[in-house]
Amino acid sequence: MKNIVYFNIGDKMNYPNGIKKGNDNKYITYKNRGMTLENDLNQTNQYYIDNDIAYIYKKPTPIKVVKADYNTNGRVIKEAYYSEPSTTDYNGIYKGYYIDYEAKETKNKSYFPLSNIHAHQITHLRHIENSKGISFLIVRFTSLNLTYLLPTKDFLNYIDNNKKSTIPISYFESYGYLIKEKYIKRIDYLEIVDKIWRLS
Amino acid sequence: MKNIVYFNIGDKMNYPNGIKKGNDNKYITYKNRGMTLENDLNQTNQYYIDNDIAYIYKKPTPIKVVKADYNTNGRVIKEAYYSEPSTTDYNGIYKGYYIDYEAKETKNKSYFPLSNIHAHQITHLRHIENSKGISFLIVRFTSLNLTYLLPTKDFLNYIDNNKKSTIPISYFESYGYLIKEKYIKRIDYLEIVDKIWRLS
Repeated sequence: MKNIVYFNIGDKMNYPNGIKKGNDNKYITYKNRGMTLENDLNQTNQYYIDNDIAYIYKKPTPIKVVKADYNTNGRVIKEAYYSEPSTTDYNGIYKGYYIDYEAKETKNKSYFPLSNIHAHQITHLRHIENSKGISFLIVRFTSLNLTYLLPTKDFLNYIDNNKKSTIPISYFESYGYLIKEKYIKRIDYLEIVDKIWRLS
Repeated sequence: MKNIVYFNIGDKMNYPNGIKKGNDNKYITYKNRGMTLENDLNQTNQYYIDNDIAYIYKKPTPIKVVKADYNTNGRVIKEAYYSEPSTTDYNGIYKGYYIDYEAKETKNKSYFPLSNIHAHQITHLRHIENSKGISFLIVRFTSLNLTYLLPTKDFLNYIDNNKKSTIPISYFESYGYLIKEKYIKRIDYLEIVDKIWRLS
């Protein structure tokens, strides 16, 4: 059984090289090229794979098939619906650890709407947390060009102790970790994982 | 970084309670009720979840959507195709470890056709193996009522050293582990994982 050491709340790391908030981030220009969070994560995860850093991948979108048939291309689905996701979008291995996260964007400047995270996904995150996996949310406030990593522990703490339908950005500022954007490793979230979970 | 100890090939465990091959397995009658391997795995994984033993789940089937529209039920997919899977079907956490496997059935009595495993899935299993994850195949020979766990290491060893399109059942007998069927924990593969990877 692995022994994962969490920081206590408030026991934050200092990031000497400035994982800092605000629009003065010199890397932010890349954001303006119209990359979505998903593209940034795909590019970052590919970098991790190509450099044998981690193996983290996106799961398929769950689809419920109602009607299928055959045509010249083989089996074709004629009627299907997107299902509510029962897990998060991304998972994999890093340094032998199970890692799992959900990534979301919001245009809102002051809060993150909890309607973005489905009930099944919260159950999933609780399972991961109980099983000592490393998990978190990556939330991008697109209008602010800010991307935060929020550990599941702190996410669950919030929703278990607040009856609100949103998480204010101040909570991300207090309990989340700002991910600075880079050129190739677009959003190098493992750098932050190393520090939070003390893996390096 | 976790230190996973593999057995050397040939260094097999003894199973005093008889994880044995052959049709004399007294649990085999349940198989005849027409349970598929997938059903058995779903039931077993649910047992693991309900009893806080492990959190292992099935990934969605990858589907490529070509045409979508809206109807009274919301967004409806009008044309889509099953994609070749790029990962295995199941993964999750057990005792803090990343665990990942693919499950396949074959009606054949003497060999397992490798056409059942896609190239991308083999690449996926190599990534897991290189990243020190626990991974394996679960293969059921339905005509024989035999279900084997074959560690990825031994699976890769075979395909890297043989140009054949099948794995003979004798290879499963030598390098695989027979999973006995039980009533509730239909196929309690974690019992075998504990022994192979020395987790208990």
